[in-house]
Amino acid sequence: MKYANRLENMKASEIREILKLTQLPDIISFAGGMPAPELFPIEEMKKITVKVLEESGQKALQYSTTEGFLPLREKIADRMKKFGINAKGEDILITSGSQQGLDFAGKVFLNPKNIVICESPSYLGAISAFKSYECEFLEVATDDDGMIMEDLEKKLEAHPEVRLIYVIPDFQNPTGKTWSLKRRKKLIELANKYDLPIIEDNPYGELRYDGEILPSLKALDTEERVVFLGSFSKIFCPGLRLGWVYASKEILEKFVLAKQPADAHTSTMAQMEVNAFMENYDLDHHVEKLKEVYKNRRDLMLNTIKETFPKEINYTHPEGGLFIWVELPKGIDAKELMKKSLEKKVAFVPGGSFFPNGGNENTFRLNYSNMTDEKIVEGIRRLGEVLNIEISK
Amino acid sequence: MKYANRLENMKASEIREILKLTQLPDIISFAGGMPAPELFPIEEMKKITVKVLEESGQKALQYSTTEGFLPLREKIADRMKKFGINAKGEDILITSGSQQGLDFAGKVFLNPKNIVICESPSYLGAISAFKSYECEFLEVATDDDGMIMEDLEKKLEAHPEVRLIYVIPDFQNPTGKTWSLKRRKKLIELANKYDLPIIEDNPYGELRYDGEILPSLKALDTEERVVFLGSFSKIFCPGLRLGWVYASKEILEKFVLAKQPADAHTSTMAQMEVNAFMENYDLDHHVEKLKEVYKNRRDLMLNTIKETFPKEINYTHPEGGLFIWVELPKGIDAKELMKKSLEKKVAFVPGGSFFPNGGNENTFRLNYSNMTDEKIVEGIRRLGEVLNIEISK
Repeated sequence: MKYANRLENMKASEIREILKLTQLPDIISFAGGMPAPELFPIEEMKKITVKVLEESGQKALQYSTTEGFLPLREKIADRMKKFGINAKGEDILITSGSQQGLDFAGKVFLNPKNIVICESPSYLGAISAFKSYECEFLEVATDDDGMIMEDLEKKLEAHPEVRLIYVIPDFQNPTGKTWSLKRRKKLIELANKYDLPIIEDNPYGELRYDGEILPSLKALDTEERVVFLGSFSKIFCPGLRLGWVYASKEILEKFVLAKQPADAHTSTMAQMEVNAFMENYDLDHHVEKLKEVYKNRRDLMLNTIKETFPKEINYTHPEGGLFIWVELPKGIDAKELMKKSLEKKVAFVPGGSFFPNGGNENTFRLNYSNMTDEKIVEGIRRLGEVLNIEISK
Repeated sequence: MKYANRLENMKASEIREILKLTQLPDIISFAGGMPAPELFPIEEMKKITVKVLEESGQKALQYSTTEGFLPLREKIADRMKKFGINAKGEDILITSGSQQGLDFAGKVFLNPKNIVICESPSYLGAISAFKSYECEFLEVATDDDGMIMEDLEKKLEAHPEVRLIYVIPDFQNPTGKTWSLKRRKKLIELANKYDLPIIEDNPYGELRYDGEILPSLKALDTEERVVFLGSFSKIFCPGLRLGWVYASKEILEKFVLAKQPADAHTSTMAQMEVNAFMENYDLDHHVEKLKEVYKNRRDLMLNTIKETFPKEINYTHPEGGLFIWVELPKGIDAKELMKKSLEKKVAFVPGGSFFPNGGNENTFRLNYSNMTDEKIVEGIRRLGEVLNIEISK
């Protein structure tokens, strides 16, 4: 059987295989990026689904438009004010999770051999989505203030084949880092200079535990180059697969063209459910509850790391989001470490997969949103033991 | 802004623009392909969603695997026995509507300039999906027994760039035609000879009003070349966006690779809802109810056409599905006709868009599943009046 060339670029995700292992019942898993299921608003969802079916069942179960359910799009537009964005409902496209927005970004902007600029490391789901369009990657170094602009500009100047800049400025996956305002402004300036679109991936932006929300890139966008990707997965629940794209009319039209043949539209029922939830309950209040729990879990994980990890190990101190990023001394391979840690029933994601061009095997990602306080302390202690043995070798 | 080359191949669907017109409240629309919303099992859905949320809310609202919810996949495998197929749950991939299966068929099999063989005319959603992979089309003539095999073989022989055969053997969209067993067997023979994969699109197969179900192409497949696409949109409801792919292990693995970066997975909640519906209610019984109503609507539309359309007009007599296909005398443009029919508040889809290489403007498609008996009679009468004036010119 002959397959398309693009398949040569598409491999089964390494994380996926690891996540399968971590689903064994007694594993303490810091591997996935899953929200805490005990915080899902299940009682509210029961009331809401019945209400939607009673009041508009025939509509909720029928085909609907590719763009999405307008009342939901209007509520999303309103919600993005948090990020300094003034949008209208009609400027929003509903997607089947923000993963679909990433796929469409590739579909709309990338030809084979084009180059995508991304943070080093970057989100695996975005890397896979772009790879399926047979592109290449240039990774730009980051520090605690986000992407290093001198490195970015050097790369933009040297590589005219760059066609897209992909970044996660708030609580980045996998590092948890947040960009400073100065870097955000500079990125917009450089995108203008080099005439490039920016994909701003923002699934975690509302989950800030310290400090103030900074303006999104989209809020700073002076030439309508920024495509903002949002998601209900982390602030509500991921199982419904609801995300959105906000962009200029011209760009959004292309994303709508990408969605039509991809899946016609996102579940009408799911859209009407989330819309009804936002009408009948307080999503802000729900997010406050999440933040309280996740902030506590982050603190607990950071404190336990401080107590138990060897001093040679560096790790990030995220102001929000779901992840801590760990750097081991060079020469220690996190994949090998994972084998030892799995013997102690603790899982994480080795960091190599987050670097599209490879290397950096001495890194790994920890998630703190999905495990209880007790498991966080116990799991990090066990991991600390493994690391102490490894480092002292 | 620079966009990907593929966008040059992707245009806003003409039907979509027409469908917007037809949503005005007093239009009698035979344009869409929508099921009857009054038959959606709304009461059952209310009970089911509450049950799913009560029993497994944390699971239903969480991330899940790309392949889909295994109990649902097992029920689908079982259900396909109707089409002579012996599948296992693990050989099924759940998709976000069968439209997504069509998109993945392009993603898995097509490079730019490759040729797709399809029926002439063919399903617009498939044409759009394949076009987004920058392919070309060869249309094969059909008669009342399906694709004409002599025409197909001639084209296969002349065009080694053919990479995919796409067909809808049961109650085709847009013609309503059903392939004979002989043609099905011959297609498999030719696909084997020319070493080609076949996409068998089967959203309507269960909606047969006369005669017996014929074996699907997948049931006749001797070399694992057939990819079967199924859907809950017509037998349950389309608003949840649930379809599936059944193929050999090798091919299915590629489809899973296509789905991972596209949308991670289909709504966990929707999958568990349909699974619970099939566990707690009788989907066969539901389909019997649909068939009773749709058979009656088909008969009513055919009878009213017979009474009111001019004799020069040909149309199909589908044994199932949702559509009747109308051929006008050459020289009459169905797009122009549509304007006149819209003045009388009646809508249909002009047929030109169903031919990927254009032409055939003297055709149109009628849907009979979405309008009440009264509207079918009234709408077809009005359309008959318009046609009589047009023909007598």
